Order: sequence, then C-alpha cells, then structure tokens
Amino acid sequence: MRPQIVLFGDSITAQSFRSGGWGAALADTYTRKADVVVRGYGGYNTRWALFLLNHLFPMGSATPPVATTIFFGANDAALLGRTGERQHVPIEEYRENLRRIVRHLKNCTPTMLIVLITPPPIDELGRLEFARSLYGDKATELPERTNEMAAVYAKQCVELAEELGLPSINLWSKMQKTEGWQKFLSDGLHLTAEGNAIVYEEVVKVFSEAGLSAPNMPYDFPHHSEIDGKNPEKAFQNL
Amino acid sequence: MRPQIVLFGDSITAQSFRSGGWGAALADTYTRKADVVVRGYGGYNTRWALFLLNHLFPMGSATPPVATTIFFGANDAALLGRTGERQHVPIEEYRENLRRIVRHLKNCTPTMLIVLITPPPIDELGRLEFARSLYGDKATELPERTNEMAAVYAKQCVELAEELGLPSINLWSKMQKTEGWQKFLSDGLHLTAEGNAIVYEEVVKVFSEAGLSAPNMPYDFPHHSEIDGKNPEKAFQNL
Repeated sequence: MRPQIVLFGDSITAQSFRSGGWGAALADTYTRKADVVVRGYGGYNTRWALFLLNHLFPMGSATPPVATTIFFGANDAALLGRTGERQHVPIEEYRENLRRIVRHLKNCTPTMLIVLITPPPIDELGRLEFARSLYGDKATELPERTNEMAAVYAKQCVELAEELGLPSINLWSKMQKTEGWQKFLSDGLHLTAEGNAIVYEEVVKVFSEAGLSAPNMPYDFPHHSEIDGKNPEKAFQNL
Repeated sequence: MRPQIVLFGDSITAQSFRSGGWGAALADTYTRKADVVVRGYGGYNTRWALFLLNHLFPMGSATPPVATTIFFGANDAALLGRTGERQHVPIEEYRENLRRIVRHLKNCTPTMLIVLITPPPIDELGRLEFARSLYGDKATELPERTNEMAAVYAKQCVELAEELGLPSINLWSKMQKTEGWQKFLSDGLHLTAEGNAIVYEEVVKVFSEAGLSAPNMPYDFPHHSEIDGKNPEKAFQNL
C-alpha cells in the first residue's frame, strides 16, 4: 500500500485535476510513490467542511493519509450583503474551524504532514468582468469578494499555522510578488495554468522540506531497467 | 467510501497525469464521484505486470475497484533483435497474459468493469527522430517497434476482449482514422495532448455505455447550492 496525499479544500482544489492543474501535477510527480487524492468541494467554506471530517478522515483508519493540504478561505471571505453572502464565515470562526480541522487530522494520526494554504488574492476587476460575462447588464457592480478581505483571511490562516507549528503557503502574498499577478487568476478567483503552477511549486517545496520529497521516495516496484529479461522473477522475489 | 477506478498499464498510463493527460482528465470528470488511481509502470510488458497483480489487486479486498483499464502491449510488441528486445513478449503469450490479468481481476470481484486498451499506432519516423534527438549519429537506423507489429498485438487484444465479452478500445485503429494521426504521438509512441484527448474520450464513452457515467453518479456530499446558509446541518443530517 503506497502512502496517500489528500488535497482537501474548495473549488480551487476540486478543479486541480483540470489540464495544467496543481493536483494532477502532484499526482504525476508522486507517481509510483504516493497516491494523490482530491477532496475538493466547490463552494464550501470551513463551516461546511467540518461536516465532512469524520467521513473523509475516519478516526481509527488503518491507512490515514501521510499528508493533507487544507485549502479553504476563498468562500469564507465572501462579503456579507453581497451575492456570496450565504458562504460567508466570520474571520474568528474561520480560524477556529481551521483549528478544528487540524485537530481532527492530528487525532487521526499525529504524524500526518498538514499544510495550510491561504486563499489566493482577488482580482476585483476580473471578478466583475466574469460576472458581466455571465449576467450581462444584470451583473452586480459590487464584487462579492475583495482583495483586502482575502488578505485578512490569509493572515489568520498563516498565523494559525505558526501557532500550531505547521507549514503554510501564503498564496495571497506569494502571487502578488509578481507584476501582473492577475494573470494567475482565470475569473479573478480561480487559477489559470500559471496560477496552478505556483501552487504546485509551493506544495512540492513544502512537502520536500518536510521530508516528503518524491525523488527520495522509493518506487513501489522495481524500475523496468532493473528487470532481467531472462529472469524477471528475480526482480520481484522480495516483494 | 467512493468507488475506485484503476488505470493499469505501462508508461502511457504512467504519464496520464501530465498536463493534458487522459488520467487527470478522467479524475476531473469523476471528481466527487469516483477516485481515479494510476497504476502505470513505464517499460513494463504483460509478463512483468503479472508479478504485480496480487499486490495491486489483492484477493479478498473489501473495496476492489469498480472499473479497471488494462493498457499494455506497446512494450510487448518491441521487436526481437532491436534495442527494445528485452521487453519483447511473444504474441501468443501477450494474449494469455492479458487473459490472466482479466481472470485475476474477475476473481477479485466479478462485477468489475474491465476495459482492454490496445497499444497505439507507431510512427516509425517519429521514433527514429526521437532516437536521433537522444543519441545523435549513434542512434539506431532500425526502429525498435513497427506500426505493423503494433497492429498484430492490437488485434489480439481486441479479439481477446470479444472472446471474454469485455469492452475494448482499439486505439491503433481509432487514431489512424484521422489524417495526420502522427500528431497524436510525441515521440512516435507516447501521447501528445491531442492523443491523450482521444484516449480520454474513448474511455469515457466505454465507461458510460457500461453504466459508469459520471453525470449519472451521485455526489459524495451535498452540492453547495443545497446547503442552507442558516441551517447547514440539515443538508448533512442523512450522511
């Protein structure tokens, strides 16, 4: 049984196996070494994610994941009084929900590598353009998310990771270090192939620093070059 | 626990989670409905694949896959007396090895949907160009695989599927129905994004015809639009 890496999050995780997606790229990197399992729930915030915990990560599992990314906040940060209001979670509750998710995973297995990922920045103009492309003149003029509010949630996510001694990826901050960072977002919120590449690189970096480096992990079975064409059974005798 | 779809094969399966890959596209299509698990072994032929069967598909598993694609033959068809000779498997043995793989999977669970995929066509000029790009003047002038020989293996694969009453995908034949089919192959053998798209479409079609259609499968948890922002617990009470 090879180890499992679980990607737990909202639509940005759910879409991570699309062409150029960060989840698929991870699965490719860890092929024959670990299984990358997507547990992405479009539209979900941390409050709703709590209902899934016992189902996705049952206590007493014989094979809990070796690593899990927790990537929520984009929906929690939807503004009150705007079209995404239903998804809004107050900032203090967001932090506490993340804490409860981490605690549950640590209870599953204390050795699990847990990585917190902040929401990405919001390109408000990109969001409005996207709304107009969907609804034309009926589109709202007020963005349902702001970059300023995403920053508040990102900050709490990073601070909680520090408090708990966990690695984190500050995507909000990382992306905006690049001039023209809006190119990382396809609709002002979700990721383009270039945005996916950043998440992929950051996750691989954090995993490697934590000892989960694909090049250092063994293949599940012999590499084909180690198989003697005339005596193949020899390569497999110690399985 | 959601159902598992296993992709069992050689490098064409192993690489199926690269950007534009057919495996990643399947994982995206079945997100929240089934897990797509890659079991691709670069360089392997059916003879070597047999050694993995009991490990990858243990008898008596409580959660065997609901579906498995078996996608071998490109290495079995490597020619004797050429650079890939070590991988060669005689045509009669190839067919019998496939039969043993199918029998093992059916013994795991008789209800498993098993789909046989033939090797793709070989673009011999593309193979030679690829060899020259690697080895320059030292590259062999004789291709280690021919399109004619790939046809022989593809035919046996399809005939075995018919004999066993299993669905199959004749990739060798399907690809060559398109003028300029060489564009489907990146090095005369492995798949480009366009080649991956064909495999993806064919697998989705066969899965759907067999009743494993993603649009008809239930989500693992409530869609976010079904969650009442004020009473979220209601949507989750029947889990």
